[in-house]
Amino acid sequence: MALIVHKYGGTSMGSTERIRLVAKRVAKWARAGHQMVVVPSAMSGETNRLLGLAKELSPQHEDSAHQRELDMLASTGEQASSALLAIALQAEGIEAVSYAGWQVPIRTNNAFTKARIESIDDQRVRQDLQAGRVVIITGFQGVDEDNNITTLGRGGSDTSAVAVAAALKAHECLIFTDVDGVYTSDPRVVPEARRLKTVSFEEMLEMASLGSKVLQIRSVEFAGKYKVPLRVLSSFTEWDIDIDEEAQSGTLITFEEDEQMEQAIVSGIAFNRDEAKISVISVPDKPGIAYQILGAVAQANIEVDMIIQNISKDGKTDFSFTVHRNDYSRAMDLLKAKVLPALGNPDVSGDTKICKVSIVGIGMRSHVGVASKMFRSLSEEGINIQMISTSEIKTSVVIDEKYMELAVRALHKAFDLEQNQA
Amino acid sequence: MALIVHKYGGTSMGSTERIRLVAKRVAKWARAGHQMVVVPSAMSGETNRLLGLAKELSPQHEDSAHQRELDMLASTGEQASSALLAIALQAEGIEAVSYAGWQVPIRTNNAFTKARIESIDDQRVRQDLQAGRVVIITGFQGVDEDNNITTLGRGGSDTSAVAVAAALKAHECLIFTDVDGVYTSDPRVVPEARRLKTVSFEEMLEMASLGSKVLQIRSVEFAGKYKVPLRVLSSFTEWDIDIDEEAQSGTLITFEEDEQMEQAIVSGIAFNRDEAKISVISVPDKPGIAYQILGAVAQANIEVDMIIQNISKDGKTDFSFTVHRNDYSRAMDLLKAKVLPALGNPDVSGDTKICKVSIVGIGMRSHVGVASKMFRSLSEEGINIQMISTSEIKTSVVIDEKYMELAVRALHKAFDLEQNQA
Repeated sequence: MALIVHKYGGTSMGSTERIRLVAKRVAKWARAGHQMVVVPSAMSGETNRLLGLAKELSPQHEDSAHQRELDMLASTGEQASSALLAIALQAEGIEAVSYAGWQVPIRTNNAFTKARIESIDDQRVRQDLQAGRVVIITGFQGVDEDNNITTLGRGGSDTSAVAVAAALKAHECLIFTDVDGVYTSDPRVVPEARRLKTVSFEEMLEMASLGSKVLQIRSVEFAGKYKVPLRVLSSFTEWDIDIDEEAQSGTLITFEEDEQMEQAIVSGIAFNRDEAKISVISVPDKPGIAYQILGAVAQANIEVDMIIQNISKDGKTDFSFTVHRNDYSRAMDLLKAKVLPALGNPDVSGDTKICKVSIVGIGMRSHVGVASKMFRSLSEEGINIQMISTSEIKTSVVIDEKYMELAVRALHKAFDLEQNQA
Repeated sequence: MALIVHKYGGTSMGSTERIRLVAKRVAKWARAGHQMVVVPSAMSGETNRLLGLAKELSPQHEDSAHQRELDMLASTGEQASSALLAIALQAEGIEAVSYAGWQVPIRTNNAFTKARIESIDDQRVRQDLQAGRVVIITGFQGVDEDNNITTLGRGGSDTSAVAVAAALKAHECLIFTDVDGVYTSDPRVVPEARRLKTVSFEEMLEMASLGSKVLQIRSVEFAGKYKVPLRVLSSFTEWDIDIDEEAQSGTLITFEEDEQMEQAIVSGIAFNRDEAKISVISVPDKPGIAYQILGAVAQANIEVDMIIQNISKDGKTDFSFTVHRNDYSRAMDLLKAKVLPALGNPDVSGDTKICKVSIVGIGMRSHVGVASKMFRSLSEEGINIQMISTSEIKTSVVIDEKYMELAVRALHKAFDLEQNQA
């Protein structure tokens, strides 16, 4: 029997009826002899309700004293849902105790609303586990060294669960969510998309950052860092599904290099259409240009994704980057007002009707020709590539957004992802 | 300028609009140069909402592990309202910080759902006050020595405010509520009832236990023990009322003997019709009888108020007591099943259509004939007295409930309470 961490999202905790079902599922695992730690999110809608009240009183801003109070406020959502889950487990006849982040304690830095976990004390939790209790730990929150409550930011409950699993050296961390695993691509776009039984951390990392919204990216980084076996699975199966079957369901995110040996070269096709591209044309190709352009953008807190600069011609080069579509106008205004005048007012062009499509696969590290196969496949469909960017296990292209579905399906087929696979 | 504690009840904190008004009132006091500590209740309805969710999952019961979770759950209400008030104050341009009970910390014993405060550490709060911040401390809750969250039970926020004021040696603790002070009697029954500018602790204690629902009785005990000047006043005045006028409004509950010297003999007429009386007739007058009867009642967690036993005749005596009307049937059943058989099945009678009317006044200690004046006044109205019980500063009678209003008005007049008074 093993030490297991379960994490349940806000939808799974969305009503007392759902909380009862979570309790029955956890009770099943506890009765099977496992030492159980559960990390729940707040009941769905609760965090937004609380922050909505705060917004009625004051617009949200960066002031640290203000953000400290937002964390005091928002952290109550998980404390309440954790206590309710403990009560539901007790009603099932299971001994259970809930702890807020500060009671464990889960120590974080003091970056309110986006704190980072620094350490987790496992002593109290271990005592409870040894006494046969299910331990429920609030997700999303911790406490800084001055005993102020902090929160980890959106999706932070995944990170909490992984961090707790790492601190307790858990056998596995099961993330129960509303999807039943990680797919080779989005089944709504590619009906032939197939659930992966395993996926490597690196691939998961690339897929998460590319828009597979299954797991919060920081939780995957954390799991990789501490080598926590992570499983994504559905909380919408019947609670009394056979436990051995459940333990093998979903997608296991692995960290062992060896396990990847037999893996396909490309594991999945990711895509998103949340971005817009901006190109500054014919700027002098001299040191400091990239910083001059992107420094101003970063200072305005605009996140930049792809950055492309090609070789120069006649001492001039073109400089392109992508930002979130919501930031497009702000970035453009900023460039025109503050950056371009200092560069001699070069031309600037932009396009919001683009999408990014990526192939992701740990096998790309050791296989040549993967990118060119991607480009050929797109070319055969008559799709023009506007930008290319590559990393060790990923190749991304920017194309006209109207071709997105076509491109994703073509690539899914080209890399044989729809085949049945062990 | 002084250190002042404000306490605001759930109705005052009932919406963001109301919280904004509380913030404006507190800001006014802070701007006048006072060091401000504020103890808010949860937003009205929130505690019941949370405990309602728990009830859907499990019936409430006495198990300590269960009650621990109820406290984890219920304490979130005050944490959220405290953070919201801090945010509202910051929006007013006032530096503010909120603390949950465990952050102060407010140490209690571990009697979950009805904990008692044992100590309050004032260090962190003082640092903030010295730095010019308004400090908001969650009412109703504390933390036991094992870092479990505890709550103080219904009305516990009043107790929190008084305890905080005691720990900080505050100049005054202002309890803002939905009434504008303590009256000589209930204005709904006695239209001539007059607000008392001051009332002694002892009187307040008697009035609170007799049904003046202005303040939670434990908070008054606490204030008396630590000699915290306590003022009850309305939170429904305009927030921008002149601060000197506000500081003199409501009713001041005093602990100085000297201040009582000029006080009237009787300060108020209290009453309630929540009780029922039970009499056991002609029981043997021998040692242990009172315990035999009341021990069983107490073991069943039934609270007894008045207890009367008169001198015996022929070795027999009558024994009467009052209980809450809700407990009447249970107490009767218990007596008949378990107590009376052992006493030779004496007759028992009961009456739920009674009321208790009391005159309360610290002056009674030093004045004779106060009780007899009360009895004469009732007799003149043709009201029969069924039971009498007296304490140092109170005389209570039980009468037929249909005479309650008549009795209260007659006594209010007999003791000249409607007169204008300094």
